[in-house]
Amino acid sequence: MGLKAQDDKTMVALMFETAWNGREAYEDLQWLCENTKGRISGTAQAAVAVDFTNQVLSDLSLDSVWRQEVWVKHWERGAAEQALILSKSKGEIKVPVSALGLSVSTDKDGLKAQIVEVQSFEELKLLGREKIQGKIVFFNRPMNQSGFDTFAAYGGAVNQRTQGPAEAAKYGAIGCLVRSLSSELDDYPHTGVTRYEEDGPKIPAVMISTNGSELLSALLKEEPELMFWFKTSCENLPEVLSYNVVGELQGSEFPDEVVVVGSHLDAWDTGEGAHDNGGGCIQAIEVLRIFKKLGIVPRHTIRAVMFMDEEIAQRGAQVYASEAEKNGERHLAGFESDRGVMTPRSLAVSTDQARFSKVALWQPLFEPYGISIVKRGGGGADVNPIRSSSPDMVLMGLIPDFQRYFRYHHSANDTFDKVDRREMQAGSAATAALIYLTDKYGL
Amino acid sequence: MGLKAQDDKTMVALMFETAWNGREAYEDLQWLCENTKGRISGTAQAAVAVDFTNQVLSDLSLDSVWRQEVWVKHWERGAAEQALILSKSKGEIKVPVSALGLSVSTDKDGLKAQIVEVQSFEELKLLGREKIQGKIVFFNRPMNQSGFDTFAAYGGAVNQRTQGPAEAAKYGAIGCLVRSLSSELDDYPHTGVTRYEEDGPKIPAVMISTNGSELLSALLKEEPELMFWFKTSCENLPEVLSYNVVGELQGSEFPDEVVVVGSHLDAWDTGEGAHDNGGGCIQAIEVLRIFKKLGIVPRHTIRAVMFMDEEIAQRGAQVYASEAEKNGERHLAGFESDRGVMTPRSLAVSTDQARFSKVALWQPLFEPYGISIVKRGGGGADVNPIRSSSPDMVLMGLIPDFQRYFRYHHSANDTFDKVDRREMQAGSAATAALIYLTDKYGL
Repeated sequence: MGLKAQDDKTMVALMFETAWNGREAYEDLQWLCENTKGRISGTAQAAVAVDFTNQVLSDLSLDSVWRQEVWVKHWERGAAEQALILSKSKGEIKVPVSALGLSVSTDKDGLKAQIVEVQSFEELKLLGREKIQGKIVFFNRPMNQSGFDTFAAYGGAVNQRTQGPAEAAKYGAIGCLVRSLSSELDDYPHTGVTRYEEDGPKIPAVMISTNGSELLSALLKEEPELMFWFKTSCENLPEVLSYNVVGELQGSEFPDEVVVVGSHLDAWDTGEGAHDNGGGCIQAIEVLRIFKKLGIVPRHTIRAVMFMDEEIAQRGAQVYASEAEKNGERHLAGFESDRGVMTPRSLAVSTDQARFSKVALWQPLFEPYGISIVKRGGGGADVNPIRSSSPDMVLMGLIPDFQRYFRYHHSANDTFDKVDRREMQAGSAATAALIYLTDKYGL
Repeated sequence: MGLKAQDDKTMVALMFETAWNGREAYEDLQWLCENTKGRISGTAQAAVAVDFTNQVLSDLSLDSVWRQEVWVKHWERGAAEQALILSKSKGEIKVPVSALGLSVSTDKDGLKAQIVEVQSFEELKLLGREKIQGKIVFFNRPMNQSGFDTFAAYGGAVNQRTQGPAEAAKYGAIGCLVRSLSSELDDYPHTGVTRYEEDGPKIPAVMISTNGSELLSALLKEEPELMFWFKTSCENLPEVLSYNVVGELQGSEFPDEVVVVGSHLDAWDTGEGAHDNGGGCIQAIEVLRIFKKLGIVPRHTIRAVMFMDEEIAQRGAQVYASEAEKNGERHLAGFESDRGVMTPRSLAVSTDQARFSKVALWQPLFEPYGISIVKRGGGGADVNPIRSSSPDMVLMGLIPDFQRYFRYHHSANDTFDKVDRREMQAGSAATAALIYLTDKYGL
């Protein structure tokens, strides 16, 4: 079937109309959030999320829907963490903490020691083993609030979480506390993966809420010798078989040339993974739904992928990339959305100048929706590996209004009610439109 | 004091830094929301809001802080409304309704009648008195979801609320139900003012939640004769003395030339008025706080105004404008923020081409914050009347990302937790920067 010839402006408007008037995507996200809360890879919830998105894609009557086997690490948090500031003057004060992903647990009685507060690895080095040995290192460098780009602020603070415990252990620390990577002062401890060095010591590591960090830091100024106790019971378990979920519309002219749009299906276990990144998965599915609703038969194969295990080891990304290579597929473009599903501000198209100039001609089509096309920020951890077999692949992505994203990210605060339907669907439509134009004109 | 000469780019960056690193504004908004919930004009809560903002302004050590007497209408909702769909097949079904501001109440036993559902005044006219007499008219035209501009969608539906009851009464309707002006399907009945014709009949009028509207409409298709019952106990009481609250930094060179930045302090009684428009008031105050923190001594007088009674009769706006006229003040610019306090997308500067061209030169200063300067959308109900004595006054305003605004607007859903500190403070800084440049370069 397909539509009769329509100009691009009309088609883009139709895509936004279709997205804003539709409710399926929002309802799918609600289901995912409510029924697969805590779906970090390896969990039973992740398996339900695989089945659910597989079913949603199947219900769209696409040309094919399938799953790709992915063996994933399986880390479980166990019982809720406990933590206490043990102050001589103030007594015992509970603070909210959350174990870091992949971290080892404390003994069953927990871990108790004095605190060494630092802002950086340089400071750690200056203090040296003498001051750190046998203590808990507390990384307390806040996210920088001064700039517009909250992702840059995150990037400037995240090494405390990813490398902090390993660094602290080098100087004999026996535990590690990391200030939550939140742009707000609140009581939500955030989480996220930490990476020990393979042959290095592994010490228990937790994030502490920003309010807890402020309190602890203030108390340490009064009483540098105060003690801190925390208890975790997380476990690293045997690997588990999981899946990427893929749905595609086959290209009518170039079935072996693929445009992929994807997001990660796994989400940190403390929250619902609404913005990070159930929403992005649902947007990828919605791109195909919009194509189907509008009767668009693409020239190239358009594929929506729910990648498993972005948060821990990117195993799903590796599997997808190696399958693509094995099957000799040429990937024209890889679109990844992993910055939340707030109102889209930009579409990132990262490629050489010649191809970017071509894409930049589409800019006027997005102006009625307040969206600009920019060069930086396309791709991501899930689609970038595809370039090993498709080196010319254009990296694309959605850049939403990210001012509030880091209040939610990797915490129990990342819930469905934080997602607005119109905001998310503006992103779905923008993605669909960019993919439509990419398919129509090539790259 | 004042700063040493700094270039504009540095000053704008300092303003954003100051806003994003500050917490006073966000905490003031939290206080206002928690302690003056329901502050529609004439209420005790509105009086507390006057005292509070007066105190916050006084604490800033401005050159002057004062109140302007404003006599306001006093409408009270009374006991919580009740409404039932009375279906022969489905029984009694409760639906959430909310009386419209200024509307008269039902009898103490409520009002029961059949329903006539319409989408427009034209449809009402076609049905005529014969079909409408003695019934409840149900206006059920949804906000258009298809476009980017949610304010345009609101504008396309709001006459059902403002004029619907008066129109329905002309054909003998005895009550009026209006679909909530929400962009979402949910259970929050919205509210807002309705205007009866002076000598026309006044019939009880309520808004019904969007979910309730969908349900009622579906049931009416099956059972057109179903009955509807609702009960309200709102009252129009004697007028009350209230106040605008004003704080100013006096101009060092042109004390009689004023740049005003304002918002309305009253808010609908069902919610906290966080986005509409406690946030805008707090942003206006924050502009002066930023000036003080940075030691800026303005050339012109900069004034923050909390206008009373925007929602019902704009009495505060009238008082402010007539005082300005009486005092022979020249207003250079009037900045109004009344579209919520989400991330700013544009600064509206509505003036003649010559002056707009001058202002447009400042565009590069706002680009690092994703903000464009546009011509349409400046001013608003509170500052526009000042033009009667300052006809050349430039109308300015903040245009935020408004995709989610109408989920909150005029409902119990407009609460503090819907406001993000970084989003709101980006608006505070953008406003401060535009006012700074206006003051520095004139207009």
